[in-house]
Amino acid sequence: MTHTPVVDVLVGKHAVGETVTVKGWVRTRRDSKAGLSFIALHDGSCFDPVQVIALNSLQNYSDIQKLTAGCSLSVTGQVKASMGQGQALEIEAQSIEIVGWVENPDTYPMAAKRHSIEYLREFAHLRPRTNVIGAVTRVRNCLSQAIHRFFHERGYLWISTPILTASDTEGAGEMFRVSTLDMMNLPRNDKGEVDYSEDFFGKETYLTVSGQLNVETYCAAMSKVYTFGPTFRAENSNTSRHLAEFWMIEPEVAFADLSDVATLAEDMLKYVCKAVLEERADDMAFFAERVKKDVITRLEALVNSDFVRMDYTDAIEILKASGKQFEFPVEWGVDLSSEHERYLAEEHVGAPIIMQNYPKDIKAFYMRINDDGKTVAAMDILAPGIGEIIGGSQREERLDVFDQRLEEMGLSKEDYSWYRDLRRYGTVPHAGFGLGFERLVAYVTGMQNVRDVIPFPRTPGNASF
Amino acid sequence: MTHTPVVDVLVGKHAVGETVTVKGWVRTRRDSKAGLSFIALHDGSCFDPVQVIALNSLQNYSDIQKLTAGCSLSVTGQVKASMGQGQALEIEAQSIEIVGWVENPDTYPMAAKRHSIEYLREFAHLRPRTNVIGAVTRVRNCLSQAIHRFFHERGYLWISTPILTASDTEGAGEMFRVSTLDMMNLPRNDKGEVDYSEDFFGKETYLTVSGQLNVETYCAAMSKVYTFGPTFRAENSNTSRHLAEFWMIEPEVAFADLSDVATLAEDMLKYVCKAVLEERADDMAFFAERVKKDVITRLEALVNSDFVRMDYTDAIEILKASGKQFEFPVEWGVDLSSEHERYLAEEHVGAPIIMQNYPKDIKAFYMRINDDGKTVAAMDILAPGIGEIIGGSQREERLDVFDQRLEEMGLSKEDYSWYRDLRRYGTVPHAGFGLGFERLVAYVTGMQNVRDVIPFPRTPGNASF
Repeated sequence: MTHTPVVDVLVGKHAVGETVTVKGWVRTRRDSKAGLSFIALHDGSCFDPVQVIALNSLQNYSDIQKLTAGCSLSVTGQVKASMGQGQALEIEAQSIEIVGWVENPDTYPMAAKRHSIEYLREFAHLRPRTNVIGAVTRVRNCLSQAIHRFFHERGYLWISTPILTASDTEGAGEMFRVSTLDMMNLPRNDKGEVDYSEDFFGKETYLTVSGQLNVETYCAAMSKVYTFGPTFRAENSNTSRHLAEFWMIEPEVAFADLSDVATLAEDMLKYVCKAVLEERADDMAFFAERVKKDVITRLEALVNSDFVRMDYTDAIEILKASGKQFEFPVEWGVDLSSEHERYLAEEHVGAPIIMQNYPKDIKAFYMRINDDGKTVAAMDILAPGIGEIIGGSQREERLDVFDQRLEEMGLSKEDYSWYRDLRRYGTVPHAGFGLGFERLVAYVTGMQNVRDVIPFPRTPGNASF
Repeated sequence: MTHTPVVDVLVGKHAVGETVTVKGWVRTRRDSKAGLSFIALHDGSCFDPVQVIALNSLQNYSDIQKLTAGCSLSVTGQVKASMGQGQALEIEAQSIEIVGWVENPDTYPMAAKRHSIEYLREFAHLRPRTNVIGAVTRVRNCLSQAIHRFFHERGYLWISTPILTASDTEGAGEMFRVSTLDMMNLPRNDKGEVDYSEDFFGKETYLTVSGQLNVETYCAAMSKVYTFGPTFRAENSNTSRHLAEFWMIEPEVAFADLSDVATLAEDMLKYVCKAVLEERADDMAFFAERVKKDVITRLEALVNSDFVRMDYTDAIEILKASGKQFEFPVEWGVDLSSEHERYLAEEHVGAPIIMQNYPKDIKAFYMRINDDGKTVAAMDILAPGIGEIIGGSQREERLDVFDQRLEEMGLSKEDYSWYRDLRRYGTVPHAGFGLGFERLVAYVTGMQNVRDVIPFPRTPGNASF
């Protein structure tokens, strides 16, 4: 592979006059009366295509005049300062090899015109060829690299927690069953129930809804760890914020309290947003122009803001005193709904909020009970323009308190025996949080629907491709 | 969090005389007749624990004398040059807070003695506290970070291909079914078959066996892409090399041929092995001492070797001429077995081999047919001491040849319609490979069984934790 990525040409890595070979796909072709054609060629390496000048002296110029969006080319030519608008450098072709034609250009699904985002979803295998999905792909990659870098630089170890699991972390998530049993001929036990002892793993097995409980075991040995992997929810939710399969980042920190991981979360969000602003200015300019006007200023504001820490109990008072008429009434003990979160983050504070210390009854069993006996050391980060983006907590590390909580919730000690072991053997205060990766990508790019920020979205009724 | 990772103390980031706080778990405690105790404290940040000197003048010294392996501590003290052997620096404690005791030390499963690797597997939630699994965890993290870095530096984009899929890439893999149907009350269609139209995704859905076909769609737009995610095989294989759930890395490169991706694979292996040698010398020294003597020299040899490219057809001649008595007879057309691969890599060449151009009948349908009509542009990388570690190929990008191949294999065009679209619209030569991450970690660490290099191994009959 001796060809040059388009980005290298556009940022001037090759001197004017140098001969280069670029390879990619035609975005547009425009013929000039002066006897030459302008071809915009993209290869995914950056937002902008490179302009290729094809003079009619090229031996296959008559073929070149038939090029349409999506055709693949190998172009060898000289880097030139561009006379035209919109680019500083272009390539004057010495030769153009047409590598692949587009069969029947009139029906090519990605023909060069604007398509609705819903239309593009029907062609998940071709939509990365569009400006918008190409930009999403680069920003998504930038965010994932920045996340790994952020944790690695701080001594965190990436842990791959299991996807297949016989336990249910949240205690209540709707889960996908995984099985190799013959569905037409299910084995039965004496009671007539399905006999999972004959299944692949010898018991009922599901797709994970969270790696948290598992990663706590590594936290209790390696101190600073994080997961970055797929998780699953079999919820019948057809919203712009839900996917049946999505990626989560879950750091877990030993000898840390809620405040420590709130700081970690704030630092991480700022770090990865800064990375996007610095490394993907081209794609962000596109999102600001075409998708959401304030997408860059919003990110800059986040990077430069101090997140405001607020207790749930105080938030309730603020909401009550706001004089606002909310659809869902506010009272201590209720879960905050989107309208409340938005009022607080967008109107009252105007900055991201770290909301802390929620009533224990609306939170998970593993969260640490505060001294008031009523609240738990949980936090959500609410960002203006999107609402909850991160949820975390300090975990209950005291065995006696944990056991009491299990009992209250009607959960069995046996089911959590290995989790309890972490509290029996050298227990330590520890805390962590979860970040839904697609919600982050949607927030950063301004894309409205998480289905458009993951390559192949899985939702009720849809596992195509 | 204002405490100091153990590694920072040991590498001298804090001056002698400085007061630091470290937090971690007791590995061993030894009492001296001179009225003091030596505590080895680990926190996962590096292989070695830090030695803490606890003088009997400490107010809770009687408790300190009861510390056992696994207890968690917060130690504040002064960094000192160590008089003892085995470490340059140690900490003389000013105070030791006992954070968590070990309930019933006599039955603590990770008590400070040597345990068999099989025994440790039974305690996957506690085994990261051991030297060996701690070292594996750091090397595994180092490799994963190096892989992301390698591709990122070269302009590759990380693509998350779907885990849930309605298609079977390899055409033959044994797959796990994913469903939310009520197993006690399965819906039936007119023919009495299970009616998957009522299932969550409206059709039969499986766990992916490879992201390759999916990632090709992104390759055909973004040029250089890679996956790094979990894949699944429902094979009833109880071997040291098989897992039902494992992580794969699958780069895919547009405008590339087999030779290009062979070079990419060689560069990548060398890059990540070099990263381990440089960044995890402490853990590698342990593996060399306790697990496999030549594990470092083997890696150094790989980093410094030139991989030898060899055609399958030539390999058959070499094997035939070897005079060796193989269990499986050698003839053109057979798949190479482990004994053949080892002879070639270890005895004949003495370096990693890139074996190329296999008979088409033993390879997958998507591999590019060579001009001889008999072989495909496929490659395997065979490393001394482990055998096949990478498998890759150039993909068939010619629609007519691909369609003919589908027909030969009895596969339907309809099932591959979206894959065929990539060949209908701006097709390009492209190639890629797959690397099983756990096999790489096992190779690098010298660990015998892949079950010991992934946190929670899933194998037939086992999805514990």
